Amino acid sequence: MASKSVYPLQALAAQLGLELRVKAGAPGNTLITGLATLASASAGQLSFYHNPRYNADLRQTQASAVIVHPQHIDLCPTSCLLSEQPYVSFAKASHLFVASPAAPVGIHPLAMVDPSVKVAANVSVAANVVIGPGVTLSEGVRIDANCVIGPDCQLGAHTHLYPNVTLYHGVSLGERCLVHANVVIGGDGFGFATSKGQHHKIAQLGGVRIGADVEIGASSTIDRGALDDTVIGDGVKIDNQVQIAHNVRVGANTIICGCSAIAGSSVIGKNCTIAGAVGIINHITICDGVTVTAMSLVNQDIDEPGIYSSGTGLDLSSQWRRNIVRFKELDDMARRVNRLEKLANQDDPAKSS
Amino acid sequence: MASKSVYPLQALAAQLGLELRVKAGAPGNTLITGLATLASASAGQLSFYHNPRYNADLRQTQASAVIVHPQHIDLCPTSCLLSEQPYVSFAKASHLFVASPAAPVGIHPLAMVDPSVKVAANVSVAANVVIGPGVTLSEGVRIDANCVIGPDCQLGAHTHLYPNVTLYHGVSLGERCLVHANVVIGGDGFGFATSKGQHHKIAQLGGVRIGADVEIGASSTIDRGALDDTVIGDGVKIDNQVQIAHNVRVGANTIICGCSAIAGSSVIGKNCTIAGAVGIINHITICDGVTVTAMSLVNQDIDEPGIYSSGTGLDLSSQWRRNIVRFKELDDMARRVNRLEKLANQDDPAKSS
Amino acid sequence: MASKSVYPLQALAAQLGLELRVKAGAPGNTLITGLATLASASAGQLSFYHNPRYNADLRQTQASAVIVHPQHIDLCPTSCLLSEQPYVSFAKASHLFVASPAAPVGIHPLAMVDPSVKVAANVSVAANVVIGPGVTLSEGVRIDANCVIGPDCQLGAHTHLYPNVTLYHGVSLGERCLVHANVVIGGDGFGFATSKGQHHKIAQLGGVRIGADVEIGASSTIDRGALDDTVIGDGVKIDNQVQIAHNVRVGANTIICGCSAIAGSSVIGKNCTIAGAVGIINHITICDGVTVTAMSLVNQDIDEPGIYSSGTGLDLSSQWRRNIVRFKELDDMARRVNRLEKLANQDDPAKSS
Repeated sequence: MASKSVYPLQALAAQLGLELRVKAGAPGNTLITGLATLASASAGQLSFYHNPRYNADLRQTQASAVIVHPQHIDLCPTSCLLSEQPYVSFAKASHLFVASPAAPVGIHPLAMVDPSVKVAANVSVAANVVIGPGVTLSEGVRIDANCVIGPDCQLGAHTHLYPNVTLYHGVSLGERCLVHANVVIGGDGFGFATSKGQHHKIAQLGGVRIGADVEIGASSTIDRGALDDTVIGDGVKIDNQVQIAHNVRVGANTIICGCSAIAGSSVIGKNCTIAGAVGIINHITICDGVTVTAMSLVNQDIDEPGIYSSGTGLDLSSQWRRNIVRFKELDDMARRVNRLEKLANQDDPAKSS
Repeated sequence: MASKSVYPLQALAAQLGLELRVKAGAPGNTLITGLATLASASAGQLSFYHNPRYNADLRQTQASAVIVHPQHIDLCPTSCLLSEQPYVSFAKASHLFVASPAAPVGIHPLAMVDPSVKVAANVSVAANVVIGPGVTLSEGVRIDANCVIGPDCQLGAHTHLYPNVTLYHGVSLGERCLVHANVVIGGDGFGFATSKGQHHKIAQLGGVRIGADVEIGASSTIDRGALDDTVIGDGVKIDNQVQIAHNVRVGANTIICGCSAIAGSSVIGKNCTIAGAVGIINHITICDGVTVTAMSLVNQDIDEPGIYSSGTGLDLSSQWRRNIVRFKELDDMARRVNRLEKLANQDDPAKSS
Repeated sequence: MASKSVYPLQALAAQLGLELRVKAGAPGNTLITGLATLASASAGQLSFYHNPRYNADLRQTQASAVIVHPQHIDLCPTSCLLSEQPYVSFAKASHLFVASPAAPVGIHPLAMVDPSVKVAANVSVAANVVIGPGVTLSEGVRIDANCVIGPDCQLGAHTHLYPNVTLYHGVSLGERCLVHANVVIGGDGFGFATSKGQHHKIAQLGGVRIGADVEIGASSTIDRGALDDTVIGDGVKIDNQVQIAHNVRVGANTIICGCSAIAGSSVIGKNCTIAGAVGIINHITICDGVTVTAMSLVNQDIDEPGIYSSGTGLDLSSQWRRNIVRFKELDDMARRVNRLEKLANQDDPAKSS
C-alpha cells in the first residue's frame, strides 16, 4: 500500500518538532516518501532506532534519515532526527504517510439522519448511514458508510466510526475515538432469570460510556449494562474481536489484545495489558498494572501488579497426550509423593533420629 | 441510560400480577422511575431480593419497594411486591423500563423488499434492509436498518433482527427470537475435500433451523449444514461472538456464553450451560444437563450430567513457566514415582512380608 | 434447505466426467434430486464412498447411485459413478445442487460506485454497496448487498463478497475468492508506541494482499500491515471469526479453523492445519506441514512438521480443581521426586555398590 505523500526532510523535521542533523556529504533536503524499518528501508525512506537489538541494522541501514535519541547520534550512519522518544516520534511521523483519503464534510444524501440529531461543524456522514433521534455528533465526527446509530447516542469531537458499525441506543463515546468496522456497542448484556429450565430475559437498562482516545478493533462487541453502565476509561485500546460483557469497567490506558473475552461485571484496573485470547470470568477484579499473557484464564481476583499466566505450553501431541493423562491423576500423584517422603524420612537416620 | 418510564407502584404491581404490601407509613402510591440493586437503589426505585447473601443490603436499602418471596416479607424494611419467583418477576419488570423506542410499523421507502416476500401485519422493516425472494415475515417481525436477508428465509412472529444482521438463503427462525447486530446465520460450513494439498470446496446444501424464543448475541455466527440442517432448539440463549459450525445441534434451553466455539457436527443436549470461551471439537456428543466451565476444551463425549473443566488455573508467570516445563515431563515423572513406590514397598517390612 | 436442481443420472455423470455403471435391473436414467450420506440417502439421491469405516452403510444404502473408486465397485449395491477421488468428485457434485440463486449482472441503482471504479464484464454489485475511488472489479466479481469497499482495492476475477463485508483501502484479493458476510479486511493493525502510560497510535501504512482461491469465513478480520503488507497465500481456507493481525503471512493451502487468533508478524507455512480456537502469539514462525490441535497456544516457533498441542484435557470440575492446585506446585513436586530418587539410589545396594 504505497503512500502518495512526499515531504522534504527539513519540512518533516519541522512538522515533527525534531532537530535535524544532516549527515556530512548528504543532500540537505532529501525527499522522504515513506517509512520503513532499519533493515528494509531504502533511499528516500525514514526509519527509527530505539533498541540496542537493532544496532547491526542501524549500521547498515539504507534509510535517508533515522529518528534517534540524541545519545545515539554517533551510532547513526545517516542523517538524524533527534528525539527524546524515537518510537513515539516515529508513531507521529506515521500519520503523515497515511494513504486513506479524508472523508468529505457533510451528510450524504443517502444517509438517513433523524431531524432531531445535533450536527456540529465539520461532521462527515457517509452513504446509507442511519441515525436515530436524540443523537449528538460533535465537531469533526466522521461516520463511514452503512453505520447504524441508535437513539440518544453521543459522539465526542473527532470520533470516527468505520463502516458497518452498530451503536444501540444510549451509547456515549468521548473525543477522538476510533471505532473499527463491524463493531457493535450497546447490545444487550447476557442476563436471564432462570426458573424451571426457562430463561426469562432481563431487559438491559444501562448504557455504555466510553472515554476519550479509545480505539476499538474490528468486530469487537461491548454490551450495555444491566442496570448501570458498562464503562471504558480514557485511552483504552481494544483490538479486534474482543468481547466485553455488561457492567464491565476497564481502567484508563489499559490494552486488550485480540479475541479476549471479559465476562459480566468484571473490573480491570488502569494500565493493564490483557494479551490475546485471554478469558476473564465474571465478577473478577484486577488491580492496576497487571499483565495477563496470551490465552490465560483469569478465574480469580488479581490484587498485585505483575505478570500472570495459565495453560500448559505447547508440545508434540504424541507426548502431550501422555502428559494430560497424568494431569488427571496429578492430585493422586502428589499424595503418593507425600507418602514416599514420609517413608524416606523414617528410613533416613539423619531425619528420623 | 435513564429510562423515561414512570409507573405508580400500584399500577406496577398490577401489571406484574403481584400483591403489593405497602409499608406502614409509606405513601400508598409512590412513583417508580426505575430499577436498581438493593445496595444502589434510591427513592423511587424498585429492587428485588432472592438470596440470603444480600440480607445486609436488604436491611439498608433505599429502594421504594422490593420484590420478595412471601416468606421473606418480614426481612424487608420497605413496601413489598410478593412473588413466588422474585428474580423472574424482576426480569419481567425490567421490560417496563426499556428506553429504546419501538420501531415504526411498515416498510421503509429505502428498504429493498422483493415483491414475492410475504409480509404479515405489524411488520417493521427499516432503511437499507435488503430482502430476497421467497422470504416470509410473520406478524410483528422487526428488521432493523441495514440487515440483509437471503432468499427463502422464514421469520417467526415477533422475531427481531437488530442492525447489520446477515441471513443467507434458507434460514428459518421461530417466534420471538432476538438476533443481535452483525450476527451472520447460514454462512457456508467449513467443508473441503482435500487431495494432493488442494482443498476442493464442498457446497453447503443444508440450511439453518432455529426454534422459538432463541436469543443470539452480537457478531455470533451460525453456519448452514453440509447436507442436513444446523439446528438450534427452542429457548436456546447464545451470547456474543459465539461460533456454531455446520450440522451442530443444540438442545432446548441450553445457554452458550460469549466467544465459545462449537465445531462441526457436534450435538449438545438440553439445559446445558456452556460458559464463555469454551471450545468443543467436532463430532462430539454432550448429554443433557452438562455445565462446561470457562475456556475449557471439550475433546471427548460427555455422557453424564455434571460440571466439566480443563486448563491449569492462573499463576504468576514466573512460577507458571517453571511448572509448564515440568508438565512436559509429567508422564516421565509419573513413571518415576511408580518405580519409587515399588522400591519403597520392597523396603517396607509391613508390605514385603 | 431443499435444492430445486434435478439431473438425470447420465447427465450428472457426464457433467462430472465420471463413468456410470448402472446396476443390473436399475433404471438406466434415474433422476437425481440431491446428495446425502450413505446412511441417510433415499431414492433419487447421490452419495459417495471413500472410507472402509462406512462399509456397512454402503451395503445398506438407499441412494440411487454412489460415487466410488473403481476398486470398490463390487462393494456397491447400487449404480456407481467411478472416480479416482470419490470425495473430490462429491465436492464437485455438491455445487450442482446449490439452492442459492445467482446474482443479477449489473450495478444496482442504489449502489454508490465511485466514477473512477473499473468495472469488468459480468460484474454484479447489489443494493447499498459503497465503493470508493480507484477500485478495480475484475470479470465476474460479485458484491452482495451493504458491502463497503474502500479506495484502491483490487478484486480478482469471480471473487465474491457476501453481504456486509468491509474492505478498507488498499486491499487486494486474487481470483475466485469467497469472502463471507461481515468480514473486515484491512482494519488497522494494533500498534502503539507507549510512553509514560500513554499509547501513541502508529498509523498502519501497509495493505493486505490475498491470493487466489482463498475463502474467508463470516466475521473474520484481517488487519493491514504496519509498514509492509499482511499476506495470505493462494488456496488458504479461513473459517469464521478468525483474527489475523498485522504483518502476518500465511502460506499457500493452509487451513485455519474457526475462532483462531494469529498475533502480529507471525509467519505460518504452507499446507498447515490450524484447528479451531488456536492462539498463536506474535513473531512466531511455523514451518510447512504443521498441524496444531484445537485450542492450543503456540508460544514458540515450530521448526519441524508434526502435530502439536497444549492444554490439559477435560475432567470433572471436582477432580480438576484438585489437580490445578497440584499443577501450581508441579515444579516443587518434581524437585522432591528427584530427591527421593537420590535417596532411593543410595539405599539400593544394586545402585550404590
